Amino acid sequence: MKVYEFKGFANPARVRIALAEKGLFDKVEFIQVNVPAGEHRTPEFLAKNPSGVVPVLELDDGTQISESTAITEYLDQSAGEPTLTGKGAKERAYIHMRQRKIESGLLEAIGHYFHHATDGLGPQNYAHKNKEWGEYQKSVVLKTMKAMDDYLASNEYLAGDKFTVADITGMAGFAFCDFVKVETPAELKNLAAWKGRVFSRPSAAVAA
Amino acid sequence: MKVYEFKGFANPARVRIALAEKGLFDKVEFIQVNVPAGEHRTPEFLAKNPSGVVPVLELDDGTQISESTAITEYLDQSAGEPTLTGKGAKERAYIHMRQRKIESGLLEAIGHYFHHATDGLGPQNYAHKNKEWGEYQKSVVLKTMKAMDDYLASNEYLAGDKFTVADITGMAGFAFCDFVKVETPAELKNLAAWKGRVFSRPSAAVAA
Ligand SMILES: N[C@@H](CCC(=O)N[C@@H](CS)C(=O)NCC(=O)O)C(=O)O
Ligand SMILES: N[C@@H](CCC(=O)N[C@@H](CS)C(=O)NCC(=O)O)C(=O)O
Repeated sequence: MKVYEFKGFANPARVRIALAEKGLFDKVEFIQVNVPAGEHRTPEFLAKNPSGVVPVLELDDGTQISESTAITEYLDQSAGEPTLTGKGAKERAYIHMRQRKIESGLLEAIGHYFHHATDGLGPQNYAHKNKEWGEYQKSVVLKTMKAMDDYLASNEYLAGDKFTVADITGMAGFAFCDFVKVETPAELKNLAAWKGRVFSRPSAAVAA
Repeated sequence: MKVYEFKGFANPARVRIALAEKGLFDKVEFIQVNVPAGEHRTPEFLAKNPSGVVPVLELDDGTQISESTAITEYLDQSAGEPTLTGKGAKERAYIHMRQRKIESGLLEAIGHYFHHATDGLGPQNYAHKNKEWGEYQKSVVLKTMKAMDDYLASNEYLAGDKFTVADITGMAGFAFCDFVKVETPAELKNLAAWKGRVFSRPSAAVAA
């Protein structure tokens, strides 16, 4: 398997964590696509992912899977326990739901903030920029952090009592928040405790 | 099972189509949440879905599942064939990827256009509105339509040769485009043919 990625970026980090959690990290060849330099917009890369974003997982038969959650689901189902996406219709749907809320409210929102309200990847990378939208998305991030803290008052992890893909998305989201210096409000103590738990996992080290 | 929804709206339509495709439509009690009137912001509804959006599936044991893709996955896995989300790690990941691209590029983008660049649900429903962002999202919709048309040049459906959740998301997206009068460019002939195929399915009738 090959992973097209750019080390240090948030979405590639999700796949790195998933690989490490599943014990698959050493089974993969990582290929760097220099996003700030525009390498994700070459015809060769667009043939792998028409959306023009990393990461992309390429299987040995040439199948290309993009979208971090799709890649994670593939990795999860092709290796053994413990599972990141759950077992059985109800547990799987619950984890899916929790992941999606954190993806849209935290990870995608902090991405919008970065690209629109800060210099982001530099002016050469943007045909469209909207500062007001970026600033608004910061408020979405803060609202999501509060909702996550509320959830963690009665749950150990972001989708119940086990580490799942929802936590991976959360880890990538908070790493991105650190990078753009959006701090977690000090009163969100459950969130701070959760961060302690997840960022001490061995998988956190391979993503940074 | 109960579905909290608002009939005629795009995300509830996805769940209606999934129910019909799985032969489960008559097994569900539909409960209307009047979104334009703000009923999705009551404490009762927020207890069912802290995100404050419809649809929500409530199982007989009280479990509440929100996020249309999570609900679809639950319905798909709890009823028999044909499957909407695929079988086996590779097929499932492929469909997941295709769904997500259409969800973000078409359905979510046309939603942003509606809420930000038009009157949307009326001024009482918006604390934040950004017309420029809405207009930009219309360009995202048009770009996605072109990518879908390219894909359909060599595929019968939006995730290969079978009807899947990717097509459901596409159907909801185009119904929303019709509603807000964003037309599909006439030269996108593969897309027109696909629309003919999917909108003649019995499931299309229950969503409208
Ligand atoms: N929905 C995609 C998002 C991937 C994404 O946005 N990747 C970023 C790097 S973290 C990227 O390649 N950005 C380049 C661009 O947007 O032009 C996923 O889940 O993988
Ligand atoms: N990600 C959610 C989106 C649901 C959604 O946005 N629903 C709309 C109706 S189509 C809604 O309830 N909007 C109310 C609001 O945003 O305040 C899903 O997949 O179900």
